[in-house]
Amino acid sequence: MKTCNQSRLQSLIERFSQFGRTENNGVTRLALSQEDIEARKYFQALCEELGMTVTYDDVANMYATLPGKKELPPIVLGSHMDSVVKGGRYDGILGVLTALETIYTLKETDTELDYPITIVNFTNEEGARFEPSLMASGVLSGKFDKEKMLASQDPNGITFAEALKESGFKGQVENRLKEATAYIELHIEQGPVLEHKKLEIGVVEGVLGMVCYEITVHGESNHAGTTPISMRKDPMFTAANLIVGMQEKLQQLDESLVYTIGRMNAYPNIHTVIPSHVVFTLEARHHDPEVIAAVSTIVEQLPETAHGCAVSSSRLWDRDTVLFDEKVVEAVEKASQDLHYKEHRMYSGAGHDAQFIASFVPSAMIFVPSEKGYSHREDEYTSYEDCAKGANVLLNAVLNLCRETVEQ
Amino acid sequence: MKTCNQSRLQSLIERFSQFGRTENNGVTRLALSQEDIEARKYFQALCEELGMTVTYDDVANMYATLPGKKELPPIVLGSHMDSVVKGGRYDGILGVLTALETIYTLKETDTELDYPITIVNFTNEEGARFEPSLMASGVLSGKFDKEKMLASQDPNGITFAEALKESGFKGQVENRLKEATAYIELHIEQGPVLEHKKLEIGVVEGVLGMVCYEITVHGESNHAGTTPISMRKDPMFTAANLIVGMQEKLQQLDESLVYTIGRMNAYPNIHTVIPSHVVFTLEARHHDPEVIAAVSTIVEQLPETAHGCAVSSSRLWDRDTVLFDEKVVEAVEKASQDLHYKEHRMYSGAGHDAQFIASFVPSAMIFVPSEKGYSHREDEYTSYEDCAKGANVLLNAVLNLCRETVEQ
Repeated sequence: MKTCNQSRLQSLIERFSQFGRTENNGVTRLALSQEDIEARKYFQALCEELGMTVTYDDVANMYATLPGKKELPPIVLGSHMDSVVKGGRYDGILGVLTALETIYTLKETDTELDYPITIVNFTNEEGARFEPSLMASGVLSGKFDKEKMLASQDPNGITFAEALKESGFKGQVENRLKEATAYIELHIEQGPVLEHKKLEIGVVEGVLGMVCYEITVHGESNHAGTTPISMRKDPMFTAANLIVGMQEKLQQLDESLVYTIGRMNAYPNIHTVIPSHVVFTLEARHHDPEVIAAVSTIVEQLPETAHGCAVSSSRLWDRDTVLFDEKVVEAVEKASQDLHYKEHRMYSGAGHDAQFIASFVPSAMIFVPSEKGYSHREDEYTSYEDCAKGANVLLNAVLNLCRETVEQ
Repeated sequence: MKTCNQSRLQSLIERFSQFGRTENNGVTRLALSQEDIEARKYFQALCEELGMTVTYDDVANMYATLPGKKELPPIVLGSHMDSVVKGGRYDGILGVLTALETIYTLKETDTELDYPITIVNFTNEEGARFEPSLMASGVLSGKFDKEKMLASQDPNGITFAEALKESGFKGQVENRLKEATAYIELHIEQGPVLEHKKLEIGVVEGVLGMVCYEITVHGESNHAGTTPISMRKDPMFTAANLIVGMQEKLQQLDESLVYTIGRMNAYPNIHTVIPSHVVFTLEARHHDPEVIAAVSTIVEQLPETAHGCAVSSSRLWDRDTVLFDEKVVEAVEKASQDLHYKEHRMYSGAGHDAQFIASFVPSAMIFVPSEKGYSHREDEYTSYEDCAKGANVLLNAVLNLCRETVEQ
């Protein structure tokens, strides 16, 4: 088994964490910001030193390609280098740097593959500067309209089109990722499961489907001291009762269903005033569309009136479960097994570029543990040992794919 | 029975509603604002035309006094002329204008009383410009520290001290209301009870005691898609369950107990993130201190941990029930009965200057109906007929007090 160089990978992670480094050892590296541009330039220089050819497409996705022995569709590895505000040192960029470490190891061991290997850096995955998230992979896969994306503005009113032009990384539409043999994205788990189960590798077989509702309970605002309980239409107590009722039903659906009320607003939100209305979101994720449908039924069958209040819900959005390519998933799984790592198959609860790329390239993902499940925060942490294990799985998954494809 | 002149009262209400009139027929007349100052000047002019002497004290409370036949402590009538932003045409000022109408009627009918009658306009009752509410009556009664009040700033950074000086209504500390025979404050109910019960007059025998808690449920924030339910510490579902549990207990205490969760905040309040913590208020009001104590017990006996979350509560404030003076209450009640109005005795759920004045002057209040219980909004409404009935009760309550006191 070939393995990567953990100390070289560590140096890469430490070096790149300087681009946008925050006081508390996190990073703020918004898409196409000065920090992101510096990271991109440095990444390009390293790739070119390795003999790779670097191109950009029309939405600034970067492709660094190491030629193969044969003219075949490339095996693509990577993720994104942008971060949220005060994010961590691993989210996204670890997928790019483990891919880079894979190339270092291939070169160092004089391993020449039939397939070209392309490292991709997707633009604006986080959507933290320009909404929506997964912007550039959404454009590549035809999920998002490019013109709308170009018009998306950051909080300073700068459009994505303007930032693209300014960045120096706007390339040709012809350079877009099209045909490829496989896409493998390594990413931190962003959840606590691997750590909790004392596992080292998550073999990701898909991205969970989800549905998100906004639920509004309309009551009647009045003075908290002067309105007898019997004359109230109190949306807050009504909402609390509805939430507990929904929770009882959701608990019975499936153990692996996750559901969250993340946003809740009362109006006018003054302690001495009975709220006029309360608005909250309920989102749920599961791999089985039938379970998601059951969640929708629970929400849509909420009573129209409860305790004198009007109850309504609107579906904010949903997405179907994305199933990754079994051959690519198996190449990842076999790599982990051959390396004697403790792994298990799992779904990603979070969204990733791979879910869009999977629509036209056979794809899979590799998860490495996130301490306490933390992500999108400065104290996001994955040990260098776990990072290196991930890189080893990535490297050997590539070798497995080459071997298997050659054998076919 | 003497009665007031409804059309004159109507003209007064309409005239004063021009001071700070809003687009939607409400008023914005913040304490010591230009609008308030104009209303004060006009009020003073009307009082002086009636032969009343107008003085101000050190916190700009205005006192317009009609001399009595004897040198006795005055009977004081009034309320406040300031409003909230986009408030209504009745809240506060109706107590001043019905007092003024009372004087008009006394003069018109050549009724000379033994007692001086003083109309009072308390400064900054609403606390909408300078916190806290009931500011000037709080200073008079020694409940609030004057120096702290002087330092209170409006949203533009102007202190109450500066606004006082600017206003031209800052007078002498010697002019403060001290000894008085009685204080009667007429006010809109700000609740739906009189309308609901088809009553015309509320004979207010006190102001409800209350307690207000802030309750915090601390969980653990994490990604909504990647954290299994079994590994969550979800403060939102925990809060909903605690609220429903408290509601069940509160419902059993007493039918006349009112309780409100008016403020609720989740952090970070993003639909895809399990909140780290949820904070909400619970306030409750009742005339019986034992019922309020039972509410406190319910809150303070919340579990310290629930569903993995830490639960804590802090008492933001409380106030004891204020009982008005039975003789003054009876003078009001008898007036209403003699006028054959439909009245009932009730407590005020809202706070009023009378609750502080009652600590050193025998006091009572008169409520007139509020349509739909609305107040602090532009569509606050009380019919002129109901306003006039209130004025009639005020006038006859004064006559009752004079008669009774003279008879003693």
